[in-house]
Amino acid sequence: MAGDGTDQRALQYEQTLMYGRYTQELGVYAKEEAARLRESGQRRSVSERSRTFDLLEYDKGRCAKCRICTVRCQKFLISRVGEDWIFLILLGLLMALVSWVVDFCIAICLQAQKWMYGGLDSNVFLQYLAWVTYPVVLITFSAGFTQILAPQAVGSGIPEMKTILRGVVLKEYLTFKTFVAKVIGLTCALGSGMPLGKEGPFVHIASLCAALLSKFMSLFGGIYENESRNIEMLAAACAVGVGCCFAAPIGGVLFSIEVTSTFFAVRNYWRGFFAATFSAFIFRVLAVWNRDEETITALFKTRFRLDFPFDLQELPAFAVIGIASGFGGALFVYLNRLIVQFIRNQKAINRFLMKKRLLYPALVTLLISTLTFPPGFGQFMAGKLTQKESLVTLLDNRTWAKQGIAEEFDYIGHSQAWQHPQVNVFVTLVIFIVMKFWMSALATTIPVPCGAFMPVFVIGAAFGRLVGESMAAWFPDGINTDGTIYPIVPGGYAVVGAAALSGAVTHTVSTAVIVFELTGQISHILPVMIAVILANAVAQSLQPSLYDSIIRIKKLPYLPELGWGHHEKYNIRVEDIMVRDVRYITLNCCYRDLHNVLLTGHLKTLALVESAASMILLGSIERAQLQSLLSLQLGRPRRLEFIRERATAEKKRLSVVSNSDAEDDHRRASQEVRFQISTEESSFSPTRPVPQKPLKPALKRPSVVERPIDIPIGSQDHSSNSSLKNLFCASPDAELMEDDDVVEDDMTIREIAEWEEMQLDEQVNFNNCKIDPAPFQLVERTSLHKTHTIFSLLGLDHAYVTSIGRLIGVVSLKELRKAIEGSVTVKGVKVRPPLASFRDSGTSSSENEATELHNLWDREKRMSLPGEHTPPESDEKSQ
Amino acid sequence: MAGDGTDQRALQYEQTLMYGRYTQELGVYAKEEAARLRESGQRRSVSERSRTFDLLEYDKGRCAKCRICTVRCQKFLISRVGEDWIFLILLGLLMALVSWVVDFCIAICLQAQKWMYGGLDSNVFLQYLAWVTYPVVLITFSAGFTQILAPQAVGSGIPEMKTILRGVVLKEYLTFKTFVAKVIGLTCALGSGMPLGKEGPFVHIASLCAALLSKFMSLFGGIYENESRNIEMLAAACAVGVGCCFAAPIGGVLFSIEVTSTFFAVRNYWRGFFAATFSAFIFRVLAVWNRDEETITALFKTRFRLDFPFDLQELPAFAVIGIASGFGGALFVYLNRLIVQFIRNQKAINRFLMKKRLLYPALVTLLISTLTFPPGFGQFMAGKLTQKESLVTLLDNRTWAKQGIAEEFDYIGHSQAWQHPQVNVFVTLVIFIVMKFWMSALATTIPVPCGAFMPVFVIGAAFGRLVGESMAAWFPDGINTDGTIYPIVPGGYAVVGAAALSGAVTHTVSTAVIVFELTGQISHILPVMIAVILANAVAQSLQPSLYDSIIRIKKLPYLPELGWGHHEKYNIRVEDIMVRDVRYITLNCCYRDLHNVLLTGHLKTLALVESAASMILLGSIERAQLQSLLSLQLGRPRRLEFIRERATAEKKRLSVVSNSDAEDDHRRASQEVRFQISTEESSFSPTRPVPQKPLKPALKRPSVVERPIDIPIGSQDHSSNSSLKNLFCASPDAELMEDDDVVEDDMTIREIAEWEEMQLDEQVNFNNCKIDPAPFQLVERTSLHKTHTIFSLLGLDHAYVTSIGRLIGVVSLKELRKAIEGSVTVKGVKVRPPLASFRDSGTSSSENEATELHNLWDREKRMSLPGEHTPPESDEKSQ
Repeated sequence: MAGDGTDQRALQYEQTLMYGRYTQELGVYAKEEAARLRESGQRRSVSERSRTFDLLEYDKGRCAKCRICTVRCQKFLISRVGEDWIFLILLGLLMALVSWVVDFCIAICLQAQKWMYGGLDSNVFLQYLAWVTYPVVLITFSAGFTQILAPQAVGSGIPEMKTILRGVVLKEYLTFKTFVAKVIGLTCALGSGMPLGKEGPFVHIASLCAALLSKFMSLFGGIYENESRNIEMLAAACAVGVGCCFAAPIGGVLFSIEVTSTFFAVRNYWRGFFAATFSAFIFRVLAVWNRDEETITALFKTRFRLDFPFDLQELPAFAVIGIASGFGGALFVYLNRLIVQFIRNQKAINRFLMKKRLLYPALVTLLISTLTFPPGFGQFMAGKLTQKESLVTLLDNRTWAKQGIAEEFDYIGHSQAWQHPQVNVFVTLVIFIVMKFWMSALATTIPVPCGAFMPVFVIGAAFGRLVGESMAAWFPDGINTDGTIYPIVPGGYAVVGAAALSGAVTHTVSTAVIVFELTGQISHILPVMIAVILANAVAQSLQPSLYDSIIRIKKLPYLPELGWGHHEKYNIRVEDIMVRDVRYITLNCCYRDLHNVLLTGHLKTLALVESAASMILLGSIERAQLQSLLSLQLGRPRRLEFIRERATAEKKRLSVVSNSDAEDDHRRASQEVRFQISTEESSFSPTRPVPQKPLKPALKRPSVVERPIDIPIGSQDHSSNSSLKNLFCASPDAELMEDDDVVEDDMTIREIAEWEEMQLDEQVNFNNCKIDPAPFQLVERTSLHKTHTIFSLLGLDHAYVTSIGRLIGVVSLKELRKAIEGSVTVKGVKVRPPLASFRDSGTSSSENEATELHNLWDREKRMSLPGEHTPPESDEKSQ
Repeated sequence: MAGDGTDQRALQYEQTLMYGRYTQELGVYAKEEAARLRESGQRRSVSERSRTFDLLEYDKGRCAKCRICTVRCQKFLISRVGEDWIFLILLGLLMALVSWVVDFCIAICLQAQKWMYGGLDSNVFLQYLAWVTYPVVLITFSAGFTQILAPQAVGSGIPEMKTILRGVVLKEYLTFKTFVAKVIGLTCALGSGMPLGKEGPFVHIASLCAALLSKFMSLFGGIYENESRNIEMLAAACAVGVGCCFAAPIGGVLFSIEVTSTFFAVRNYWRGFFAATFSAFIFRVLAVWNRDEETITALFKTRFRLDFPFDLQELPAFAVIGIASGFGGALFVYLNRLIVQFIRNQKAINRFLMKKRLLYPALVTLLISTLTFPPGFGQFMAGKLTQKESLVTLLDNRTWAKQGIAEEFDYIGHSQAWQHPQVNVFVTLVIFIVMKFWMSALATTIPVPCGAFMPVFVIGAAFGRLVGESMAAWFPDGINTDGTIYPIVPGGYAVVGAAALSGAVTHTVSTAVIVFELTGQISHILPVMIAVILANAVAQSLQPSLYDSIIRIKKLPYLPELGWGHHEKYNIRVEDIMVRDVRYITLNCCYRDLHNVLLTGHLKTLALVESAASMILLGSIERAQLQSLLSLQLGRPRRLEFIRERATAEKKRLSVVSNSDAEDDHRRASQEVRFQISTEESSFSPTRPVPQKPLKPALKRPSVVERPIDIPIGSQDHSSNSSLKNLFCASPDAELMEDDDVVEDDMTIREIAEWEEMQLDEQVNFNNCKIDPAPFQLVERTSLHKTHTIFSLLGLDHAYVTSIGRLIGVVSLKELRKAIEGSVTVKGVKVRPPLASFRDSGTSSSENEATELHNLWDREKRMSLPGEHTPPESDEKSQ
């Protein structure tokens, strides 16, 4: 308590600081700053004036003022162009336009189908043909178009954006070609009337827009080159994508954060809000301008009563919707993955479909559109409604089934579609939900640009409507017993269901906000939030989110999230999961070591340590850098130089008496052979297979290096060494050079091999090599939780584990992934890591993470050993 | 383009992976996992069965089954208690109750005031006395109570939470005392009717709740000890605080994120949503249960029309509100700071107020309540309305001033308060805005628990209402010209104004969401978003947020945000701002170096390098660790041991013939002096001032070490050395020990000084010292932007700058702060850092950040120099 007293006194002091103490600092600071500002302002105006004067001097014509004005304007514009908000406004404007145009085209496509279908109502068969052919053609075109122009445009794009925002560079995902393919492909795909969504692709399209705009605007200034800024802009673009798709700025920002980020910089927040709001605003203004709407309102406006939106006693029903949606969402993700895997596993189907790439989309479309044919099975599932129309009718604030019978079903508009003379409206809804469920899961596997959000949203709304109608039938006069009759609003249930199911599939909470913005009403906030949270809780414990599922299917580099409150994460430490056998190079290693390390390792970067004895980590070098070092050392230019030097030395030797005869003999011997086997050399040259350029994977961060497959057969026992040149000199210009001055290269294979052997024994010169001098380091005691945080915060690929400067291990994304998945899957049962039993997990982590100095002393002793810098020791490390 | 082709091919391959390729992995994985699960399940059930069996064996009584059941239940409960969601539910429940009780008490307080005021309507003077005395008493009580119980409870609490969530430990801020003080103080303060808010304190209260609950629940399991988990829970608690205060779960989560975090972990998202939703739900259910409401609805429900909420042509008016609110918000923050500074600067006032701590609150309250006295000046500013009533009337969906005259002002309820027989409603509104503006700025400086959000919110609403009424007077039939008359809704303007002004003051966008949740209507989403964004843009460029302003006033450790698109940030590098003269210690340094370094440095941790020549960074050591090392070396126990050893050696020498005479003589000489000056030693002992325990600052992370002030006068020239003991042995038990066995300590001061000199020349043994083996490292070329990101991501205090393992500088929060503020304040004019002109900022950053190896080679050369481990060299570094 004595300590407490002191602290309290200190705090009182601290506290009164704000209210009773004189501190000069702020005032003085402000004055200084003001002075500085004034001064710099003067300086600026002086320099500007002098510049103006120069211009006047220079141009004595009468339009001098004009020119000065123009120059100034230009300068101003260019300086402003670099500002973020200009970029964001342009992005928002562009995306709003794109979104509106796409929507417009989709609407025309759908109208055209309806018109065809309506015009042929004399003949059912013709009607069927029209109903089916139209989407098949559109989908096939979309699939073919994207396949030819840019296959990266296929799918939702959110998984890829998640990966890109994690810091991984996915090539070709942000090019103009992809943009065109995605926009046109998406329009056609959605115009076909299939149960596909627009949201995911729009995230991708917005990111494409941002990347292209960034490139375009970098013509005006250098600032757009910055990588971290690009990532910030991409994050904002994702928000814009969702925002302009649903006219939901807030929901868009939140959804994009939840879906794409692991850690979010709050300072980027305003960017997303700014751009998304502007975009949503323009998007809705375009609708007003096009006379679709009288003023700016929500996309799917609802008109529920405000006074008494729901009764407290209805909450259990909402909770049921949430839990059921959770299971449904997990099932949807599972079903989607199952379909993909089924098609992959059936080799016969697979082989056939691979040949005819467009057959799969066509078949799927045919199946789905056949089933929705309105005079056929479609009559039981409101098949003639488009996705948008279904949603509007589902969110309707009137009750469809009073007393459980559909007899009062006399509304004008699309709601009629849900009415069937023979069948109850409940049956219609159930059929709709079941059919749409598997149809959506199937349709989203078609290789066209498409998302799954909207279909899921509609299914959720239908499910909610079903529950709501049941409640309305059960309590025809409402639940409230206080006198006033407040009938149940099934439309509110539909809203809740839509938010819950889409939240469960995407593992997000912000679908709640999207729903409010879409419907323009927030009165159901508590039911929606409760349902969404319950749905998330259920779905997250059963399946990964749809996007994570696709990431796994596509094998994109990812880091799984830590689950909901898995404590064991706090007890696993880095030392339990790290790889102790680190590939490293020493400062004084020779090229042979480099060669060996490159052949055996697999990580993208290699650790550079001081020496094998001290193991002090100095930095990390990229594999590519080392490869280029090696290729430089063994490359043809260097050999040619060596030959030239040898020739010069020969000349010198001939003029001056030399005293190194042994070496000279050797050289002469090799020169003597020259003419003998020069033909063999030249004959070998063409037979040596031209090394194929390896197929670069889409990722710039491959975790597995391409092993050399095509070792030339010509050289016998030194094959691995002489093949090095082939391995590392694979760039076309290097080949060209070889063809150019082939005259001088007169070494035999054996000579080359010998020369290469000699070269390999030289010490590496790291001068021309880029070294990352501060690779990320962890300590043995760092907890898995902390490691995960750091990896996802900094977007790391790997981190070295050091103990007081000494490299003792490495942890890569792979190990981390394994560790997390291992303990996540085996729920409740703790997977004991190898060394866990030797630790007391009760001690606080801060104590554990500070290591004692025993190792350091050991090292000190070893350091004083003689001969640590000799080559033999440096050899031992690259076993 | 050749490269593009290859990439495309690779991508096609990648793409088809999902649709056409067989991969066994997922299936196999699932099977393996299933097998593992089954196995572990069996194992568990076996062990459980055996345990059950044991229990049965042990207890053969008839209620064995009962007991087993109890034990199982207990186990289940305890295991479940550790789960996050239980914690969050408890937290939500608790906070909802607290919020409701506080609201209830405030309502009673306010009613009491009204009742007193109403009962005394015969005498205006008595009425005035009652009107004024009541709040003065309440505020004074509140101020006194918090001052006595826990001064940390004063103020909003959001600045402190921001600091705590940044990783800084503020002591006493999360204790039970503070909780009690905050809750009771807040209730009294708000019950007084002053323009104070509830939001900020509720963030603090929720965090207190979370911290206390966490402590309580750690009785059941060890998991609650984890620091990172605590921070996660505190972040969730902040969301709960806002959520249960306004019944706004989504807005609460977003607001708390914006206000407290720099980087937000999306995996914490659900925690916030879950707890805030539950809390808001319970909070509103309590209202229903108390018969205040019929069902769960918004707190300040509005009833604007849904069909045509606003016309497109009204948007400029909304934009004007936004921009004006931006200026207003900045002015509010400035005014608030100005008042605090004015009171500090006026020394006379200051001295007087410091003496009578409760006078300032009383005076301010007196002033404000005098001005709002309804029969007095209050009649022109709706003085008799409470804050809540004002807000309800301002958000009313009816127009007050048709045709610019207030004659139709015949509504029942509180709206009458705005009507004045002589004065226009516009004048009332203007007076209200102006008066409340400075009143709120003044009231929030009172040292009671209070926030500024709600007062600002009300002022914003009034401003919006003013603009709305003006618009309604200007366009009596609405703006729309398409036939239907849609009159303008001034209430909508009030909503926009409230969101904009509160957004401007707090620098947040999420006030928009809070507004929707508070009013229960989202129809004005676009105007609100536009106004909030504009207000933020204006306010952020003029002033820091209110919370940041308080952080600066209170001098809490903080890191300013990077401003809106300041490009120059991308061009400053770490090398321009780092401190090159780093204090460090070497592995083989002696205690003297340690001593010197400790006396000169000021950072909390010191770098440990291999040697002064190599400068390879091995880790960092906390100052406290070094101090304890030094005190251990120079401490009394060690000296006594030395004396004992010397005595033993003496004895040995007497029995055995020794051959080291010189040393022995020295020892004998010192022994001879022993009896002569032993009295002087003992007389000196009590005169030595007992070192005062330094007042611990509230922060656990002080950046300035306490310099030794009280050097004992007794010792002449070795004073600094012998004072070391005083400096480092200040703990009371050390003093006690000295008193215990004073018998043996018979060394003179000179002897002690000599001994200490000797000790100081010994090499430091780091064995008992905790070393952080992986302090965070940056590179010279790291940009300021990246540095800021890393510092705020990881909550760093300082980072070392290394170049290929060599320590070359250090950057602390201070340098970073200076660099950011320097370039933020001088807007548009780039402050050129010293070395900036030598750099070309056009090159890409990735190239810059990889350093070449020149330094390394230089170092290598130096490394091979002989004698680098000899003491003379290690001396040179600790100048």
